[in-house]
Amino acid sequence: MKLSLNQWTTRRWTVAEAVEGCVRHGVEAIGLWRQEVAAQGPAETVKLVGDAGLRVSSLCRGGFLTGGSQEAMDDNRRAIDEAAELGAACLVMVVGGLPGVPAGQGPGEGFSRDLPAARERVAEALTLLAPYAGERGVRLALEPLHPMYCADRAVLSTLGQALDLAEPYPVDQVGVVVDTFHVWWDPELFAQIARAGARIASYQVCDFLQPLPADVLLGRGMMGDGVIEFAPITRAVRQAGYAGDVEVEIFNADVWAADPDTVMSTMKDRFASLVLPL
Amino acid sequence: MKLSLNQWTTRRWTVAEAVEGCVRHGVEAIGLWRQEVAAQGPAETVKLVGDAGLRVSSLCRGGFLTGGSQEAMDDNRRAIDEAAELGAACLVMVVGGLPGVPAGQGPGEGFSRDLPAARERVAEALTLLAPYAGERGVRLALEPLHPMYCADRAVLSTLGQALDLAEPYPVDQVGVVVDTFHVWWDPELFAQIARAGARIASYQVCDFLQPLPADVLLGRGMMGDGVIEFAPITRAVRQAGYAGDVEVEIFNADVWAADPDTVMSTMKDRFASLVLPL
Repeated sequence: MKLSLNQWTTRRWTVAEAVEGCVRHGVEAIGLWRQEVAAQGPAETVKLVGDAGLRVSSLCRGGFLTGGSQEAMDDNRRAIDEAAELGAACLVMVVGGLPGVPAGQGPGEGFSRDLPAARERVAEALTLLAPYAGERGVRLALEPLHPMYCADRAVLSTLGQALDLAEPYPVDQVGVVVDTFHVWWDPELFAQIARAGARIASYQVCDFLQPLPADVLLGRGMMGDGVIEFAPITRAVRQAGYAGDVEVEIFNADVWAADPDTVMSTMKDRFASLVLPL
Repeated sequence: MKLSLNQWTTRRWTVAEAVEGCVRHGVEAIGLWRQEVAAQGPAETVKLVGDAGLRVSSLCRGGFLTGGSQEAMDDNRRAIDEAAELGAACLVMVVGGLPGVPAGQGPGEGFSRDLPAARERVAEALTLLAPYAGERGVRLALEPLHPMYCADRAVLSTLGQALDLAEPYPVDQVGVVVDTFHVWWDPELFAQIARAGARIASYQVCDFLQPLPADVLLGRGMMGDGVIEFAPITRAVRQAGYAGDVEVEIFNADVWAADPDTVMSTMKDRFASLVLPL
């Protein structure tokens, strides 16, 4: 299990700068974001990453499927194409919240409170997207998000629910993400990680800050700055058979304001001392 | 299923004022808080509630057991005694977060990240408190809190986990709370409500605000102001066999700032139109 930089951890860096940063700090893999790849240019990103010898541990992100729109389906197909072009180990799927509730904002006029229906729409979209991904050699990675994001970002709230959703598909077509921030509280966590086995497509780490900041999206902290005990989770993920990259993905105002090279150094230290010990 | 006022919904009212408010608005039951009862005087509270003919739907709250201290156990025994004196239908138990993490604050020096151990400590405390409660005719009501409070308020995060914890005890000794704010997101919600059956000791309602306010404790809104669809949950609770009072418990800066009589009127309207329809 090797450290990977999710590029939003050093968010002010471009793709080119983040790739250089990985090389400079001896980090062998990177998790990319679609809008940053688009800004750098997909072909140039492929060349930069390839020349640097980096693995692309994930592309973030597809999803937002609960509205049931054709536009969302088309955008997800484009995301799958991009993941294929980049040779990403998976396409992270943040499935979307209640229809009509924009991320981080209040509900829009005429939004829906029908949570079971929203969840059903995700399952329906997968019946089309999973085969499309499979044909292109892309693995979808369903990410359960912390329940505090259920209304606006992901009606997929637990690892168990993600595994139920993935079950009809081959493991190399639909996997799941284990992100410590989102799942650390789950009393079923260790049982569901064991159940997940080869379904684990991505292991992402960051800490859960206490108290949460005013914008709860930015409650993701550097490992050691919050309340999560990482080693047992890493051990469980490893014992379930996962041997891929471990992405550090931090959304945090202070981390974003800090010098990215300092963030990289701290990340490496904390990863070695807190996340990796098996 | 009848409406009950949890007194923190009209927080600036004393017990005496809240009792008068219930009578004035035709609300037949009240959920009391220990510190307000202490301020009014326990004996006077018993008299006020009795003279008004109100049911005491719950006493809030016992719990905070994860630190394993003798003080916490003693305080819980006192809370049980108070619930007995008040003839409360149950004593709500908020079990506590990680040891050394004060509610709403950052972790203290030397706090513990050992979540499984904290959960185990709650189970151990129950082995002493449940019989004590049973001898006094008090029903403990284990309340799963939203996972965003796992670190600082309750390591009990799902209804399923609460039911597992309650299982060794008679249903009239240890029950569970179904609070819409805390459990609305749970993909297992309806299955676990059905499983709960006679274990449901309290049904509490309020809405989940989106976006959450800066202090996430105050994200509890008036029904209709957030994202929860209440009727299916009420129906499930009723079908599970619960026929007790339904407490409206709102922690919200705007609701607390408003005229309590206006809050009572709005509460009654929203309860009738959004919560009760079966």
